Amino acid sequence: MNKIYADNAATTKLSLSAFEEMKKYLIDDYSNPSQPYSFSKKSKLALKNARKMIAEYINASPEEIFFTSGGSESDNWAIKCFGLSNDVRNIFTSEIEHHAVLNSCEAVNHSFVKLKVDSNGIVNKETLEKALAQEKEQVASCETSFVSIMMANNEIGTIEPIKELAQTAHKYGACFHTDAVQCVGHMKIDVKELDVDMLSASAHKFNGPKGIGFLYIKKGTILHQLINGGAQENGYRAGTENVASIVGMATALKENLDNLDANVKHITEVENAFVSKLIEYKIDFIRNGAEYHMPGIVNISIKDSNGEMLLHRLDLMGIYISTGSACDSVNNQVSHVIKAIRVPQDYSEGTIRISFGKDNTIEDAIAIADAIKKVIDGNSIINKKRS
Amino acid sequence: MNKIYADNAATTKLSLSAFEEMKKYLIDDYSNPSQPYSFSKKSKLALKNARKMIAEYINASPEEIFFTSGGSESDNWAIKCFGLSNDVRNIFTSEIEHHAVLNSCEAVNHSFVKLKVDSNGIVNKETLEKALAQEKEQVASCETSFVSIMMANNEIGTIEPIKELAQTAHKYGACFHTDAVQCVGHMKIDVKELDVDMLSASAHKFNGPKGIGFLYIKKGTILHQLINGGAQENGYRAGTENVASIVGMATALKENLDNLDANVKHITEVENAFVSKLIEYKIDFIRNGAEYHMPGIVNISIKDSNGEMLLHRLDLMGIYISTGSACDSVNNQVSHVIKAIRVPQDYSEGTIRISFGKDNTIEDAIAIADAIKKVIDGNSIINKKRS
Repeated sequence: MNKIYADNAATTKLSLSAFEEMKKYLIDDYSNPSQPYSFSKKSKLALKNARKMIAEYINASPEEIFFTSGGSESDNWAIKCFGLSNDVRNIFTSEIEHHAVLNSCEAVNHSFVKLKVDSNGIVNKETLEKALAQEKEQVASCETSFVSIMMANNEIGTIEPIKELAQTAHKYGACFHTDAVQCVGHMKIDVKELDVDMLSASAHKFNGPKGIGFLYIKKGTILHQLINGGAQENGYRAGTENVASIVGMATALKENLDNLDANVKHITEVENAFVSKLIEYKIDFIRNGAEYHMPGIVNISIKDSNGEMLLHRLDLMGIYISTGSACDSVNNQVSHVIKAIRVPQDYSEGTIRISFGKDNTIEDAIAIADAIKKVIDGNSIINKKRS
Repeated sequence: MNKIYADNAATTKLSLSAFEEMKKYLIDDYSNPSQPYSFSKKSKLALKNARKMIAEYINASPEEIFFTSGGSESDNWAIKCFGLSNDVRNIFTSEIEHHAVLNSCEAVNHSFVKLKVDSNGIVNKETLEKALAQEKEQVASCETSFVSIMMANNEIGTIEPIKELAQTAHKYGACFHTDAVQCVGHMKIDVKELDVDMLSASAHKFNGPKGIGFLYIKKGTILHQLINGGAQENGYRAGTENVASIVGMATALKENLDNLDANVKHITEVENAFVSKLIEYKIDFIRNGAEYHMPGIVNISIKDSNGEMLLHRLDLMGIYISTGSACDSVNNQVSHVIKAIRVPQDYSEGTIRISFGKDNTIEDAIAIADAIKKVIDGNSIINKKRS
């Protein structure tokens, strides 16, 4: 049986060229890059080049890129430590953020504001503006306010109007952070154009290794350290640099970016083939998320079905998909995102996320649609027998 | 020219069998271990086995082992988050701790107590007892006090009397954490016998990969999360699990432990050969640190010499050693450890650390001693010419 992996929003297959680059620093140039001897020259240079490459991609300076252990650390750092450094009065985020954001906000300020989204999962700038205006009435200035809105949602793929939201935050003097974990390596990103102050990323979402990511911190942003200690990362993030993984991250990113347009085109074709098949098969489903979404993420709610059952049956057929966020997978209820966009109850329990990547084919898409049809047909037979 | 790496206290060469195990999870079983489908079975099992193996080594339960991004994160987590959770009144640490500990203490409580060490770098239990007794006079109970003393010093190798210190802390009701980064994988450790509440470790110090470590947290210890978010690590440390590196850490650890006695015997022989040569060559030096020290760590202060110059000259001969902690290497002054043990000034500036590992040979030791002699002899000629 051919296996089909279609859970690329949870994690991606490591790029083989990234692995080959990592191997050099795992096996040969293993020295501690902070040491001044010549054996550390290559690893030092590798860190420098990786930082430069990442900075150029998002139109930042190398000094604005800080390596972390991944998206969760980046989010925690941005949210918790901005709060500590600037005596933040209030935090504004959306109700569909990743738990790394929501739980960090809660850790800093239990009364943080979760902005409502529309039925497509979009945070409208008017909603943010209203909240900030209310805040301003009470405190005269929002300079100690913090806004964190994700660039694209990990479950439904909706891409948020980050530029408008960041500008709105800045109009009120607030700091703006975006969790771009689902976007980095999959679309063009320009932090200056978007006007964001901080941006989180995670390598394993773009064919890099797990356990590595970065946080962009705009020059001038005042932020305490989350991890104190040695002088690494310009004194802002301690810990011996994970050279191999940093190199792997940069290599995977470059590979993705070199083929960005072709990848997006291909993934969109795969996605369209899948959705067309579902329609052709007359499956009664709602497609969740906005039209402007991350290519490859297809979140659907199938009427009178059950997401967990679907995941399990597809698994038996060698197809790997998800019911929502992997980070939330111990929780079997309807996710906070699906609740927030108000999917009707007879559909919401039948929610699954198929997330295609560059390695998926049209054949994969059709096979998954076929499998879903088979499960639903089989299930309705069972249901009919029971009724 | 044969290169000699003798900076194993800064980082170690990755075990090749650890690399082979990592490869499986980097390349083949790359799925997100939090996902419930069958593709994640192997990575889930790998995490479980790694946790069990590490727990057994330190005589803990698997539920007491939490994977982190390394020693610095572990130290930060223990110190900062215990403080947050328990409204800590005072923190007691030593003046020779790693900066991950010292700077975390400072971040929580600017008036934390840095206990003095003796000239061998030992924190005597009487010193801790006196400090805790003083504290108790003021607050009646030390239940909200926190003590963090390293198991062995990274610069001079001194092994601290952790059991006595932990028992002293507990006598006063304080929580006891130890940074065991320099010890894990190199000696037998029993957290129950030692009576510690928390213990930090880092894989790259025992031939595992960089960017991974763990924190042992004794059941019942109340500790906030440092990294909030998903449900990973039983809800205590968010972020997609770095499966490959966790497997690499456990494999390297097992390999070291399976050969522990032989490694210690060999490293001690190499160390002794080196020190004997220095004595034979009549080099005027002080050996820093206690007699009971981490095998392989040789910290010496050579009279009227300069550590940085020595490091550089040895580097030119293909020998890699250190002047102190890699984490502090942007700072060229005499280290806080060398200051704390009060090395006389005419010696202190000539401090270098040679740290032998299991791959070093007696020939390496002799070659390093020869090189040091050559540099010193050459240098005294230069000095004589100048005078």
